Amino acid sequence: MSLLSRLAPSLARGYRHTAMGAANTLGIRSFHGTLRARLAADTAPASLAGIRAANLQKTLTTTPKPLLPKEELVFGHSFSDHMLTVNWTASAGWGKPEIKPYGPLSLDPSCSVFHYAFECFEGLKAYRDQSGNIRLFRPDKNMERMNQSAARLYLPQFDGKEVIECIKELLRTDARWVPEGKGYSLYLRPTLISTENTLGVHRANKAMLYVITSPCGPYFKTGFKAIGLYCDESNVRAWPGGVGNRKLGANYAPSVGPQVAAEKKGYQQVLWTIGEDHELMEVGTMNMFVYWRNELGELELITPPLDDGTILPGVTRDSILELTRAWGEFKVTEGKVNMKQIVKASNEGRLLEVFGAGTACVVTPVKRIHFKGSDYNIPLDPANPESQAGPITDRIYKTLFGIQYGKVPSKWSVVV
Amino acid sequence: MSLLSRLAPSLARGYRHTAMGAANTLGIRSFHGTLRARLAADTAPASLAGIRAANLQKTLTTTPKPLLPKEELVFGHSFSDHMLTVNWTASAGWGKPEIKPYGPLSLDPSCSVFHYAFECFEGLKAYRDQSGNIRLFRPDKNMERMNQSAARLYLPQFDGKEVIECIKELLRTDARWVPEGKGYSLYLRPTLISTENTLGVHRANKAMLYVITSPCGPYFKTGFKAIGLYCDESNVRAWPGGVGNRKLGANYAPSVGPQVAAEKKGYQQVLWTIGEDHELMEVGTMNMFVYWRNELGELELITPPLDDGTILPGVTRDSILELTRAWGEFKVTEGKVNMKQIVKASNEGRLLEVFGAGTACVVTPVKRIHFKGSDYNIPLDPANPESQAGPITDRIYKTLFGIQYGKVPSKWSVVV
Repeated sequence: MSLLSRLAPSLARGYRHTAMGAANTLGIRSFHGTLRARLAADTAPASLAGIRAANLQKTLTTTPKPLLPKEELVFGHSFSDHMLTVNWTASAGWGKPEIKPYGPLSLDPSCSVFHYAFECFEGLKAYRDQSGNIRLFRPDKNMERMNQSAARLYLPQFDGKEVIECIKELLRTDARWVPEGKGYSLYLRPTLISTENTLGVHRANKAMLYVITSPCGPYFKTGFKAIGLYCDESNVRAWPGGVGNRKLGANYAPSVGPQVAAEKKGYQQVLWTIGEDHELMEVGTMNMFVYWRNELGELELITPPLDDGTILPGVTRDSILELTRAWGEFKVTEGKVNMKQIVKASNEGRLLEVFGAGTACVVTPVKRIHFKGSDYNIPLDPANPESQAGPITDRIYKTLFGIQYGKVPSKWSVVV
Repeated sequence: MSLLSRLAPSLARGYRHTAMGAANTLGIRSFHGTLRARLAADTAPASLAGIRAANLQKTLTTTPKPLLPKEELVFGHSFSDHMLTVNWTASAGWGKPEIKPYGPLSLDPSCSVFHYAFECFEGLKAYRDQSGNIRLFRPDKNMERMNQSAARLYLPQFDGKEVIECIKELLRTDARWVPEGKGYSLYLRPTLISTENTLGVHRANKAMLYVITSPCGPYFKTGFKAIGLYCDESNVRAWPGGVGNRKLGANYAPSVGPQVAAEKKGYQQVLWTIGEDHELMEVGTMNMFVYWRNELGELELITPPLDDGTILPGVTRDSILELTRAWGEFKVTEGKVNMKQIVKASNEGRLLEVFGAGTACVVTPVKRIHFKGSDYNIPLDPANPESQAGPITDRIYKTLFGIQYGKVPSKWSVVV
């Protein structure tokens, strides 16, 4: 009996139905599908206004800030001159998008974002290419996921294409904030919060979408630095029937205690697992990939599947799957892996590379995993014991990096 | 093998250790205990300031609002003239508490409360007794729980006694907002948010504790109105290794979708369950109680236990357990109950009363439960088929109500 069926029998039934080709009437996807359909009908009747880039209003700052020297940039610590905001009400829909000077939000202390975590967000980056153009990487995927997150909280939906147009205008407005240089970028943080100013856990009648941007440097200033993972047996990040597959604020604050505990033990990130078999889930706030020779002797890149609704559908995750499948050089699998299999592979010399994947770092190589009192080391690059990344990890990084900075032509890179 | 041990083997081991009288080195409690101890050392060294009621500053509004007519009060929709705020920084500790006019918070859009749900809250009420005194009900329990919630998020701890003194002064300042009359009260909402104004999931270096108050009327204006529950098989509110036992914002926003879905099916609240056996967890945002003749033929009041870390330790829940144990008239149990047992008891005429318990309503009687396509009716009061509450539910309600309004002497009722 799978973990899923033990946890939420009807979900498991839903998946069996899917597997059998029958209607997935009880599964997570059908539930969310129904929810989205219902939501669209409930909160966005045709008479309500959508977000329209053509309505964008712009008020420029009269006190532009000086740029920080590039070497002083710390992720998420300084922000550009302007922000994008759009307000929504259940009665009128979306208002006019507005670019205005970066500044504080003024919100009633009763707003449900403060009490019940009615909030979701996205993270993406703007890169400057060799010709000086500003580029985004797959922004449509972020908009699609943000709408899925919003639907889960009954927050309003929006047309992602229109928001991307508004974001492009924000980037043109703050173009000087997109740093030049390898590994430098302007991090964008689209955020959607409830501004419903009444207490009680119910649907929000008011909301605000906003985008702030923060210049940042390379995640690893001196090349890769492989990290150690601490497999946390006491805490579970997400579970079937929960919200781990949506980018909700609710998934993040509870991770800080376990993260601090892992750091105090000398490990950089938490390895999240679930169930008696310690099935791998995620690494800190990243998706997890394992490159190994599997028990059938095949070379395989494997990452936990999205089926259970517990794994965040990462844009970097999706890109790595598509890229490596196109390479056709090894098996690429979305499938379950547990710690027993990792330990066995490590002991038999079959565990080749492990890495986390996300927007902030692209990929983060893993050099050891702590599990039940033992450290399992990952060779990274057998040809070079001092290496901080294995050859597949390094190649994935360089390929994605090339696309993001416009050196490798790709439909994923969008010129602003 | 229990659900707990399947989900989080080390937690289950921890509990077995406890059961054996050995050190609970791996259990949830020891983890949180360790976390709290560590946190106290990390974030509140002796040199950092605590909250001191003696330092309370007060600025009165120059534009007091008119009171709404009592019949127009809607829960959480209107607020009194003043609020209490206290700011905290990691470097200096807590600042001076301040009572000031109710008004918007001005917060940087990067604050981690907006992105990662660094937030927790409490709910309690101030009641006016027959002598005109204002009374609180067990405020120490709310402060204790709020510190537990804060610890889980690495938000700062505080001395609950000092905050209660500040709250008392807020109530004296806004005394005219505490309504008179049966079932009327002033609802208090202590809230703790991160005001850390940098992106990235890490410990907050800035936070704000605030208390706002909202006058409200009786939950059931015309006496009890029993509700129907929809047993949601697709969503799980909380799970072992999660944060369901802490009053975090993160637990609430994800509940709105399932709640709306239940309402559309004609049921007032979601019945949350977990696992293949559909173990009972909570009812909407309330703890759940079942009064039945159990399979041994004993009259028993039973509510899910706190052991798994999935159930909110409700103040009303705790009070009902203590009260009914003191009555000594039937067995009172913190123990697991699943839907199979509920269905069997219903079919055999042993299911006598079911109710939710919480601050807002004290108790909410349940008249039917929907599970897998069938409705199971609960007789409530066999002597009166039109009744909206069974005799035990009604008696618990009246006893707690009497204590809260100072009619029944009790150490739980604190005069302001």
